[in-house]
Amino acid sequence: MIYTWQHQIQYYETDQMRIAHHSNYIRWFEEARTYALDQAGFGYGKMEECGVMSPVVSVSAEYKEMSRFPETLLIDTEVKRYNGIRLVISYVVKEKETGQIRCIGESSHCFIDSRSYQLVSLKHSYPEIHEIFLKMLEKPSGSL
Amino acid sequence: MIYTWQHQIQYYETDQMRIAHHSNYIRWFEEARTYALDQAGFGYGKMEECGVMSPVVSVSAEYKEMSRFPETLLIDTEVKRYNGIRLVISYVVKEKETGQIRCIGESSHCFIDSRSYQLVSLKHSYPEIHEIFLKMLEKPSGSL
Amino acid sequence: MIYTWQHQIQYYETDQMRIAHHSNYIRWFEEARTYALDQAGFGYGKMEECGVMSPVVSVSAEYKEMSRFPETLLIDTEVKRYNGIRLVISYVVKEKETGQIRCIGESSHCFIDSRSYQLVSLKHSYPEIHEIFLKMLEKPSGSL
Amino acid sequence: MIYTWQHQIQYYETDQMRIAHHSNYIRWFEEARTYALDQAGFGYGKMEECGVMSPVVSVSAEYKEMSRFPETLLIDTEVKRYNGIRLVISYVVKEKETGQIRCIGESSHCFIDSRSYQLVSLKHSYPEIHEIFLKMLEKPSGSL
Repeated sequence: MIYTWQHQIQYYETDQMRIAHHSNYIRWFEEARTYALDQAGFGYGKMEECGVMSPVVSVSAEYKEMSRFPETLLIDTEVKRYNGIRLVISYVVKEKETGQIRCIGESSHCFIDSRSYQLVSLKHSYPEIHEIFLKMLEKPSGSL
Repeated sequence: MIYTWQHQIQYYETDQMRIAHHSNYIRWFEEARTYALDQAGFGYGKMEECGVMSPVVSVSAEYKEMSRFPETLLIDTEVKRYNGIRLVISYVVKEKETGQIRCIGESSHCFIDSRSYQLVSLKHSYPEIHEIFLKMLEKPSGSL
Repeated sequence: MIYTWQHQIQYYETDQMRIAHHSNYIRWFEEARTYALDQAGFGYGKMEECGVMSPVVSVSAEYKEMSRFPETLLIDTEVKRYNGIRLVISYVVKEKETGQIRCIGESSHCFIDSRSYQLVSLKHSYPEIHEIFLKMLEKPSGSL
Repeated sequence: MIYTWQHQIQYYETDQMRIAHHSNYIRWFEEARTYALDQAGFGYGKMEECGVMSPVVSVSAEYKEMSRFPETLLIDTEVKRYNGIRLVISYVVKEKETGQIRCIGESSHCFIDSRSYQLVSLKHSYPEIHEIFLKMLEKPSGSL
């Protein structure tokens, strides 16, 4: 279950090294994650409805090649691990024309109640959402 | 009543023209405004306590000269107009060493209730804050 | 000659007022402008080839209504004035579903040599580009 | 050799979770790194003079607690590893009043020629800068 988000690099994302500033990839991961969760059925509207937020617990990125304006990037997003409480998502950022890998990264997330900011277990409190993440983890049939 | 905020240009604020990206000035205006309001006695804690927010209604900037990393800028902030409902603040951005003017700008603001998002009149609902803005408008004695 | 750019508001563009931060509109103007110039035949590659840059001389925005994540915005971009030396572009930002106007704005630009940073007259030095801007100014036939 | 940089959280750095958006920490790492290198004698002016740039090869952050506007953060920066070719810097972000740790992180860097974008060995090509990094690595006397 890989979801691919497309991002067109903007001028304001460049820095004086004439490349996209490295901090932007962390934001593009968020764009890609938002898209993937929405596609999987747990979009922002659904989260709000449930009263759940999903803060970032950690993030990492390895920069392989520099990206430049006005390139278009493809970001492959995949749920790597999920245990009902913690979620790990991985990202592969490629340049669209050449397929060259520019960056790989990972983010991990917990789930909190949007009012109390207390940790929640999706498995226990939101079995419907729990199912969504289990499905995102599933390998396509025959992919062993 | 001019309040002067100091901002050190950061690398991530540059773009590939090797200058600070023009959108950052709008953010620096906010930094300077936050500082000025805080100094005048209407800092963010006070606003929260009152349940008032002050969204930006309009903003404008004229760019006189380009700014570069790692220059330090001074931003002079002044209340230009205030009528109990609407507030206009002006900004003059100068390079610290030379005093060269880099940008002048203005922002206008209304006041809204932080729960209902309805417009509020400071004059009627928050006379204490109203007084603060009237004082910010006052010319120093003998300045006619 | 109106060019319409589409922008999907991202989570990282929100602020704690639960709206898209006002500084982002200045960046979205740039996105829309980049797109419009590209469509008109003066994309970034062409600019680089000519050795011309087009810094922002002034910018202004009037915020009509607040925008929220994850709305999609349409930004109508139009060349308002152009005289061979100076260019003025206007923007109308609307919410995609409702057509509600969120923000209107304007930016003005000069043209500089990308090496010397000296002002250039497109009319004299780059007649081919000059023609492109004149065409962007033209009213559609019968639109008097 | 720990260098401490101070950052005041700005309103535009918040998101609708009412916390500083996680991507900002990556930018604050850069602020702290710029400051530390400058203090150690390898500021941006010096880098430019040498024709050396130091792109980010990887970055990671673990978010311990949320940070909010208008808190002030202290960022302790330290050279963790350095071998003449590669540099690893670590960051500890604390809230100023309480000393509460908000985030820990790390970035690694290589060195490239600012014209050719080719890798350079500081040890071989810039022994003077090499010495600076070796000194940043040194433990204070008696710190075994």
